[in-house]
Amino acid sequence: MKDAINIDGKFATFSDMWKPKRVAQLNDYDVRIVKVCGEFVWHSHAGTDELFLVWKGNLCIEFRDRTVALGPGDMYVVPRGTEHRPVAHEECQIVLVEPRGVVNTGDAGGEMTAEVQTI
Amino acid sequence: MKDAINIDGKFATFSDMWKPKRVAQLNDYDVRIVKVCGEFVWHSHAGTDELFLVWKGNLCIEFRDRTVALGPGDMYVVPRGTEHRPVAHEECQIVLVEPRGVVNTGDAGGEMTAEVQTI
Repeated sequence: MKDAINIDGKFATFSDMWKPKRVAQLNDYDVRIVKVCGEFVWHSHAGTDELFLVWKGNLCIEFRDRTVALGPGDMYVVPRGTEHRPVAHEECQIVLVEPRGVVNTGDAGGEMTAEVQTI
Repeated sequence: MKDAINIDGKFATFSDMWKPKRVAQLNDYDVRIVKVCGEFVWHSHAGTDELFLVWKGNLCIEFRDRTVALGPGDMYVVPRGTEHRPVAHEECQIVLVEPRGVVNTGDAGGEMTAEVQTI
């Protein structure tokens, strides 16, 4: 049987930005953690909602018509098919929940596309 | 478009124990929060894993052959079909992720069965 997963402990094991790590699986969903800083790419996920929980720091999720500002302990579900761009002015730590196989850059692709590692 | 969901703010809106509240939906999954204190009932969920994230306090998840101790920022996924019993010696705040429609007492039923309210 598995041990408890300490989120802070998992964040302490890596320093790369915009590279999601899988820390748990729930049915066919992943729990991923990611450190971010700067601007991501505009993208959407046609097939799924995407849950963001800010663990440390501050994150803006930009939409085409507004921006949602999130601090520690704030959660937001980006609806499927909705263009969005995460932006963090300083390092921000995020917990994500989304179906296994979801690609971080969604429909946009490009150089920020990252394979999800399990840690 | 929805606003950010502040987890601490949501916890501040209720005080009842063992009554999960839905704070977000992700596809056909719920994000629920619950305050617990004392011993829950032994139960299992045949059809689904269940994610526990301890937000504040300490939680023991008892299994028939061991106990997993969780503190703030610790996560655990109880595998489907696995008998377990959450126990907290003092008030503990938990975030749960599980498919919509999952009943808190699983196969056990009984007086601790609670309907999930949206807050």
